[in-house]
Amino acid sequence: MSNNQELGITVSKDKNISEWYTQVVKKADLADYAPVKGCMIIKPYGMKIWERIKTKFNQMIEEEVDNAYFPLLIPESYLEKEKDIVEGFDPEVAWVENAGKDGELEERLAIRPTSESIIADYMSKHIRSYRDLPFRINQWANIMRWEATDTRPFLRTREFLWQEGHTAHRDEESATEEVIKRLEQYADLFQDLMAIPVLKGKKPEHDKFPGATITTTVECLMPDGKSIQAGTSHNLGTNFSEAFDIKYEDENQEKHLCHTASWGVSTRSIGALILAHGDDKGLVLPPNISPIEIVVVPVFVGDNDEEIQEYSEKVMEELDCFRTELDDDKNRSPGFKFNHWELRGVPLRIEIGPNEVENKEVTLVRRDNGEKTTEKVSNLDDKVEDVLEDIQYSLYKKLKDYRDEHINEAESLEEILGIIGKKRGYVKSLWCGREGCEREVKEKVHAEIVLTPFDEEREIPDEGKCAVCGEKAEEIAYFAKNY
Amino acid sequence: MSNNQELGITVSKDKNISEWYTQVVKKADLADYAPVKGCMIIKPYGMKIWERIKTKFNQMIEEEVDNAYFPLLIPESYLEKEKDIVEGFDPEVAWVENAGKDGELEERLAIRPTSESIIADYMSKHIRSYRDLPFRINQWANIMRWEATDTRPFLRTREFLWQEGHTAHRDEESATEEVIKRLEQYADLFQDLMAIPVLKGKKPEHDKFPGATITTTVECLMPDGKSIQAGTSHNLGTNFSEAFDIKYEDENQEKHLCHTASWGVSTRSIGALILAHGDDKGLVLPPNISPIEIVVVPVFVGDNDEEIQEYSEKVMEELDCFRTELDDDKNRSPGFKFNHWELRGVPLRIEIGPNEVENKEVTLVRRDNGEKTTEKVSNLDDKVEDVLEDIQYSLYKKLKDYRDEHINEAESLEEILGIIGKKRGYVKSLWCGREGCEREVKEKVHAEIVLTPFDEEREIPDEGKCAVCGEKAEEIAYFAKNY
Repeated sequence: MSNNQELGITVSKDKNISEWYTQVVKKADLADYAPVKGCMIIKPYGMKIWERIKTKFNQMIEEEVDNAYFPLLIPESYLEKEKDIVEGFDPEVAWVENAGKDGELEERLAIRPTSESIIADYMSKHIRSYRDLPFRINQWANIMRWEATDTRPFLRTREFLWQEGHTAHRDEESATEEVIKRLEQYADLFQDLMAIPVLKGKKPEHDKFPGATITTTVECLMPDGKSIQAGTSHNLGTNFSEAFDIKYEDENQEKHLCHTASWGVSTRSIGALILAHGDDKGLVLPPNISPIEIVVVPVFVGDNDEEIQEYSEKVMEELDCFRTELDDDKNRSPGFKFNHWELRGVPLRIEIGPNEVENKEVTLVRRDNGEKTTEKVSNLDDKVEDVLEDIQYSLYKKLKDYRDEHINEAESLEEILGIIGKKRGYVKSLWCGREGCEREVKEKVHAEIVLTPFDEEREIPDEGKCAVCGEKAEEIAYFAKNY
Repeated sequence: MSNNQELGITVSKDKNISEWYTQVVKKADLADYAPVKGCMIIKPYGMKIWERIKTKFNQMIEEEVDNAYFPLLIPESYLEKEKDIVEGFDPEVAWVENAGKDGELEERLAIRPTSESIIADYMSKHIRSYRDLPFRINQWANIMRWEATDTRPFLRTREFLWQEGHTAHRDEESATEEVIKRLEQYADLFQDLMAIPVLKGKKPEHDKFPGATITTTVECLMPDGKSIQAGTSHNLGTNFSEAFDIKYEDENQEKHLCHTASWGVSTRSIGALILAHGDDKGLVLPPNISPIEIVVVPVFVGDNDEEIQEYSEKVMEELDCFRTELDDDKNRSPGFKFNHWELRGVPLRIEIGPNEVENKEVTLVRRDNGEKTTEKVSNLDDKVEDVLEDIQYSLYKKLKDYRDEHINEAESLEEILGIIGKKRGYVKSLWCGREGCEREVKEKVHAEIVLTPFDEEREIPDEGKCAVCGEKAEEIAYFAKNY
């Protein structure tokens, strides 16, 4: 690294979150821009975070779901079999029309924008009997969607990494159960691993995934009052089964269409993670997701340095059940190191200087709130565990309090616009269910309906009226600006 | 699965290894054909094998090498910067020329056939000083090479999965060390994990990787006498550093070009694994790589079935340090299950019927040689561990003996052709180093020079002459037919 480079974050998150985000992504070594616009290079530190998400989610699903790998290239005719898919994704597809010595291909091939079609075809070949159901398969793969505008590393990129689960079921009920089960797992992934509270619900009819009968979503409110769609789980009804002839034979040898579902979470989650907790010093990582939980920094003073080194190594041993890094590079000053690890969001720093050695202590510094405490070195692992748990909880709690304060009710278009304009966050309103009423809000303040609560989790008064048009209310809408 | 499907392998490996291979791939649930010719679907069982290879190799390199993720799409101008890369890969590239609402792109984009160029560009931006060296980065990714002919699942596919490591060094020596270190790791991966002996060496000058100064290879001899190039590690000299300006500043602030290297192993290794050990009943997996080491099959006889079930579950508990599966499905006969798990290559089967329960025993059946033994259930885990180790070793030994018997020396073209024609395997000859002499062999028996031993591992007699042309010998050549 060149020395005259601006190492730290030079803009305040509050003042310019967009520029702040870009700086954190680059300076915390999470990602780089790629030569192709809208694509990104995920650097090792960003990749370690993705690997932790992957490992955790694999553990959640492994009892029931098999991992496989499906081809990158999908023939255009496959996409065309399900009309919503082709209409929904056609404007975003990158096409291969020329390849190798073959030259021009007979049929153009899509780089997968999602894999429903190719996996539906696979299902139709592998599902025979009710005994094969539920049929569940998942892949971790790269995806290409040629977004036209406003690409940003992790949050919106033309190529991203994700997992896509695809399942087939006997009936509507089993498919619905699956959709909700995976949505709950996404909620756990965000809340427990990443300390990001979520709201669960459905997307409005007109904003469903192409080919879905219901799209469910987990939404995370970011500190700038904008919502992120962080994971989605879709009920596909019999749309793909009809298009690809996915049928099973029941106990009486009668054939029926399967009900299918799909669900996915992507590297976008890292974007949410950065936005959720970061501050003006850079990234802030909750301990559960952080590749490094603790960094131990010996503070050498040119005297007793060997003792400090030895003591630091002993502390490292004591903490070997955590993901710990010892930064004992003698060419860098303690101040440089503090900044370096703060920028990268490491949750806890342990400083060890001559005083600590003399008093058999260590100094703990929390990344989330800067709090500095001194602890005796005996039973250090227990104390550290408590602190890490508290950091994890505090980060969650802070964001949850913020979120709860930013769900406001509105009874008229004026109120909706007022709240979005002033406080942002979610505005909860009764809604007739028509796209037109959403459009009125959208055109005025660029907010849209990011979710409607599940039927069983909401009550609509008998006399309830849509906040926008005054017609009979059929749904509750959460309006928000979003990423 | 339909009942009238031919479940078992219907052709002998000796008689028709090509058809045998295709059947094993499909019937052991390893892979399926994809709608796009030459591509494949890696099914869950095949994926589990790949995941084991991935986990093992990650463990080998993780201390020194960081994982990252680079973009799928590489601008044509990047490929063109290194002339050998463009010449070597151009005939195999799949191109994106149209994407999304952009329509026709200003520059066509290659789906990565390998990532040297884009990673060299990254290196040029991230390497500043000698302190940044050696610089090592790896990615697990999908790769596209539009092979014109003769595609087969795992062995040769247009899309495959691999890891590609890319490193930069101060000097030739450090790059060479890296190349050899990774080659040794590939050798360990094949030998220890997959029980496949390898030969290590260099590729002839004219058969190097595009852009490399030296290409090293691990070659595995398959039971049909053909060699598989199973992993390669390349010294790229300063070719990429010159093309992409990868320079470092030394201790005296002087700038120098880096020496770079790259190394990769792919899903092709699964093809080698299938061919290496399989037999007429299907796949045979060495315990270290097998997703399931032991299958426990209770043999229900309609009497004391509950006791058999309970006893089997106890045995499962006893063996919980192994990767074990209990197949207690009452709708399938024991015979059906034996065939099912043999087809999938599970190394050890444990049968438990009324006799076993009564005598506090279990019956062990080895997949590799069919050997059946009865063991008391006490200390079963130790006994099983011994048997698994013996299976692992026996599979390796058998292939190594075969390989050693199939390295034959030849002193004339006639002898080379004779051995290749009759016994196959490797023919070891003195060679002048000229492509023309290799071509003479190739044209007559479709064998080529798959490796030449490292300088320090071979001796060429002063008066040694090329077996083909009689000119002065400069190298030792291993001729073989290959995959």
